[in-house]
Amino acid sequence: MSSKLKLIKKEVTVKSPGTVANMVCGFDIMGFALESPGDIITLRAVEGNSSITISNLDHFNLPIDPYSNVMGVSLAAFHKALDREYQFEIISEKTIKPGSGLGSSAASAAGIVVAANALFGNPFSKEELISFAMEGEFLASGSRHADNLAPCIYGGVVLVRSHSPLDIIPLQSPTLYTTILHPQIEVRTSDSRSILKKNVLLKDAITQWGNVAGLVAGLLMEDYELISRSLHDVLIEPSRSILIPLFHEVKHAALDAGALGGGISGSGPSIFMLSKSEQSAKQVEVAMINMYSGTDIPFNTYVSRINPTGVIVIG
Amino acid sequence: MSSKLKLIKKEVTVKSPGTVANMVCGFDIMGFALESPGDIITLRAVEGNSSITISNLDHFNLPIDPYSNVMGVSLAAFHKALDREYQFEIISEKTIKPGSGLGSSAASAAGIVVAANALFGNPFSKEELISFAMEGEFLASGSRHADNLAPCIYGGVVLVRSHSPLDIIPLQSPTLYTTILHPQIEVRTSDSRSILKKNVLLKDAITQWGNVAGLVAGLLMEDYELISRSLHDVLIEPSRSILIPLFHEVKHAALDAGALGGGISGSGPSIFMLSKSEQSAKQVEVAMINMYSGTDIPFNTYVSRINPTGVIVIG
Repeated sequence: MSSKLKLIKKEVTVKSPGTVANMVCGFDIMGFALESPGDIITLRAVEGNSSITISNLDHFNLPIDPYSNVMGVSLAAFHKALDREYQFEIISEKTIKPGSGLGSSAASAAGIVVAANALFGNPFSKEELISFAMEGEFLASGSRHADNLAPCIYGGVVLVRSHSPLDIIPLQSPTLYTTILHPQIEVRTSDSRSILKKNVLLKDAITQWGNVAGLVAGLLMEDYELISRSLHDVLIEPSRSILIPLFHEVKHAALDAGALGGGISGSGPSIFMLSKSEQSAKQVEVAMINMYSGTDIPFNTYVSRINPTGVIVIG
Repeated sequence: MSSKLKLIKKEVTVKSPGTVANMVCGFDIMGFALESPGDIITLRAVEGNSSITISNLDHFNLPIDPYSNVMGVSLAAFHKALDREYQFEIISEKTIKPGSGLGSSAASAAGIVVAANALFGNPFSKEELISFAMEGEFLASGSRHADNLAPCIYGGVVLVRSHSPLDIIPLQSPTLYTTILHPQIEVRTSDSRSILKKNVLLKDAITQWGNVAGLVAGLLMEDYELISRSLHDVLIEPSRSILIPLFHEVKHAALDAGALGGGISGSGPSIFMLSKSEQSAKQVEVAMINMYSGTDIPFNTYVSRINPTGVIVIG
C-alpha cells in the first residue's frame, strides 16, 4: 500500500476530543468520547528531508522536541509507514489539560495521526492509526493502552476487548450525557497506577465482570436502569478515589441529583457522571459545583453529549 | 398475594433442561439452557397436612427424604410462601446425571418450582421462583448460585449480573448449537471449587472482563467472530482443566472441526463447544468422539440447540 501513498492536501486541521476511559467497571477496556473539551491541531506537509516541527498555541508548555512530544512520536510512527520523506509542521492548540484524566495525550496522539491520514487520502484503517498513536501513549504513560485512543478515533462508546492483538468494538448506546468535574490538582498516571493492587480477590473480580457484562448489555439493549445498576467499581475506585478530595461526596451529590452513575475518569482526578438527558446532566453539574465550592481547590466542569464521531477534520 | 393462592390443577408435568454455566469467560455470571438432556418431573398436590413424598423413576439413587433432596428443599421453600398446607407428591425421572457439570441439581430445583407455580396458576415471578430454587442449589453445593437456575427457568442465554440482590438479564443471541462431551468421571463441585485460587492477578482479571464484555457484545450484536474471539478463560480453565483427562486435546480437536469456542461446562467434567449450525455441531461431535475414543473412559455426547424456553409444562 505504502508505495501508492502521496499527499493529496498540504494542510489539514482536526478537532480531537477528550475521552473518558474505564467507564467505572470497565477498567482498561472501555471508554467514550466527549464533545468538549477538545484540541485543535493543524498539520502541514511537503516532500523533503524528514523533519517535524511543533508550535504550541496554548499555555501548557509541552515539549516541542518531536521525540519528547506525544504528537511528534505518533507522527513519526505514521511517517515510518510511508515510502517517501516529508517535512511536517504541527500547530497545536490544546484545551484538554494534561493530567486531567480526560485523555489529553490520546487527543494529541489520535488527532495528529488522523490529520496525517487525511493529508494522504486516508490510506490507513482506524486500527492502524491507533497502533501509530499508541507510540504517543507509550511516551506519555509508559504503556501502549488504547482505552482513550479508541473512543477518540472511533467516537461513541468503544470496547477494547484485547490490546494484543488489538480488538476494538464500537458499541451502540442510547443517548447519554456526561457531567465532568475536573479538580485542578495533579494526579500522576504513574502514582495512580502504583496505588493499584497487583492481586485482587476472585470474588471481587466476579462482581466486577458481572457489572462489565451488565454495562455492555445495558448499552446495547438501551436499558438505562441496567446501565445504572452496572456502574459500580469494587476494585479500582476504592484505591484511586483516595487521591481525589471529596470524591465520594461529589459522586453522591450527583447521584442524588439524578445521575445514572459515574466515577473516576481515566486515572483521575476528573470525576464523570452519566445522565439520560442534557437537562439532567446540567442538574448534576449544579450539584457537583455546589459540593466542590466548599473546597479551596479550583475546578472546571463540562457538560457534554457522548460524541458519536471522534476526531473530525474541520479544515 | 399468598392469601389468594389456590390450586387450579391437581397435577403438572414439566420438562426441565440441562444448562451450561460459566460460558468460558463468564464464570459465575452466565449460562445457557440445553434442549437435551432434560429431566421429567410430575408434581401432584392436594390440600392437607404438609408433606412431600418423592419417587425416583431413574437409577441415580438420589435421596427420597425431602429434606435431603434438592426438589424437596426447593418445594418446601415454595410451600412456605403459601398460606395453606398441601400434600405434595413428586415423581422424578432424571436423565441429567448428577455431577456431570450440566446443571443436574438446577434442573431438579427449577423444574419443581415451575411445576408448583403452574399448579397455582403461576402467581410467582421467575425471579421469585429462582429464590426458592436457590435453596435446592444450596443443599447440593453449599452456595446459593443462580448461573444454572436462571437459564433453566428463563431459557436462552442469561446473565446473572448480581446474586445479591438477584439481577437477571436474558440476552438475545444468534442461533447457536452446542456439542457436549460428558466423560463419566466424578468431579465433585467442592473439589472443583477448592482448586481455584482465591486471589488472581489484576491483569488477568482485566483480560477476563475484556472477554466477558466481548462475549456479551458478540451475542447481542449477533457477531459470531466476536463471540469466537471472546471465548477464552485465563483464570478458571487453567486450574480446573487438569481435573478433566484430555481436556485440551478435545477442545483443540473441536476447534479444528469448526467450533467457535468452548470450555468446561459448569464445574465439569463435561466439555461444551459452541457452533453456528447443527451441521457444524455434529462435525464437532465426531471430532470430540474420535479424540475421546482413545481413552478407556466411558462418555456421552449431546448435540443441542440453545433452548430458548427453559422449563416447560408438558402435561
